[in-house]
Amino acid sequence: MNYPESFQKLVECFKLLPGVGSKTAERYAFCMLDLDEEKVKQFSESISDIKKNITTCPNCGCLSEANKCLFCEDETRNQDIICVVENQKNVFVFEKLGVFRTKYHVLGGLISPMDGINPEDLSIDKLINRIKDENIKEIILALRPGIEGNTTSLYITKLLENTDVKVTQIAQGVPIGADMEYLDTLTLEMALENRNEVS
Amino acid sequence: MNYPESFQKLVECFKLLPGVGSKTAERYAFCMLDLDEEKVKQFSESISDIKKNITTCPNCGCLSEANKCLFCEDETRNQDIICVVENQKNVFVFEKLGVFRTKYHVLGGLISPMDGINPEDLSIDKLINRIKDENIKEIILALRPGIEGNTTSLYITKLLENTDVKVTQIAQGVPIGADMEYLDTLTLEMALENRNEVS
Repeated sequence: MNYPESFQKLVECFKLLPGVGSKTAERYAFCMLDLDEEKVKQFSESISDIKKNITTCPNCGCLSEANKCLFCEDETRNQDIICVVENQKNVFVFEKLGVFRTKYHVLGGLISPMDGINPEDLSIDKLINRIKDENIKEIILALRPGIEGNTTSLYITKLLENTDVKVTQIAQGVPIGADMEYLDTLTLEMALENRNEVS
Repeated sequence: MNYPESFQKLVECFKLLPGVGSKTAERYAFCMLDLDEEKVKQFSESISDIKKNITTCPNCGCLSEANKCLFCEDETRNQDIICVVENQKNVFVFEKLGVFRTKYHVLGGLISPMDGINPEDLSIDKLINRIKDENIKEIILALRPGIEGNTTSLYITKLLENTDVKVTQIAQGVPIGADMEYLDTLTLEMALENRNEVS
């Protein structure tokens, strides 16, 4: 015999989550049975609310709540700098640092012809328009290092070559606490190439 | 800045699931944003349905749907045998095999004085009553091997010592495909002790 129908339905739902197979989904569903009524109600409501309340800002591509972009409409941020990121999640990676308070631009992916992702599939045109419209002085390319990230950074840099916008890129090199012998050769090559003079 | 409120609420909900920390919960919440409207609605509904539809059978402790126990009310099962398991999940571990079609009894844990779990905290009294009331001829102890499982099996065996109920226990030994050098000593000792004559 298999699980009761309502139970199996919930298992199938959990299997939609990334990296969740049958065993984990079953474990999650059993956990739901153990939670108290109130928590389960909250869980169900948060899920149904998320699609209603959270949308994508048509200007920068970040998450917006109740159709108000948390970034574009925040005038206390540095209005001259746009930090360019791959996806909505990466916005919060930088936000949590709390170091820079800039505007953001979400590309929605990286250029990867092998996977059929070309520049026109990304929000690059919109970025170029924003740079003009919002009178941007600097863009910080904060894309995942690697072939796709570097190709995308290069493509955007070329597009802005003859403008007076400053284009910067986050440093690529050896991460803090890394065990040198386990680092890949690309990272090490990059770290040697981008070496800084210290004295 | 942190995540928008509705988003953070959903992240907190996902963190209620076993083994899910902040990073995984955030990943799941982002995944929900990518799912289509219909799927998200189903997800939310399955969660709210689970507490309504799935309850625990007051007789055997298994999952029951719409207040009908899937096991107690199934007359095609062997009515003389009860398979005793630790929790509701383990019922389905055996059900999926499809080998035995017996009744079940969920103990709701294993005896473990160190964790404050004594025999009276488990559904052992009810098991003894069921054996009488339902005229049971055999109980199969199918508990997790180890100190707690063995203590519980021993306790139940003692209780039924002077009755004519046959008490059996699933075999403990070396699992199929096991790499002998990685097996723990307890399992190996058990396997030696329970050795079978082959010729």
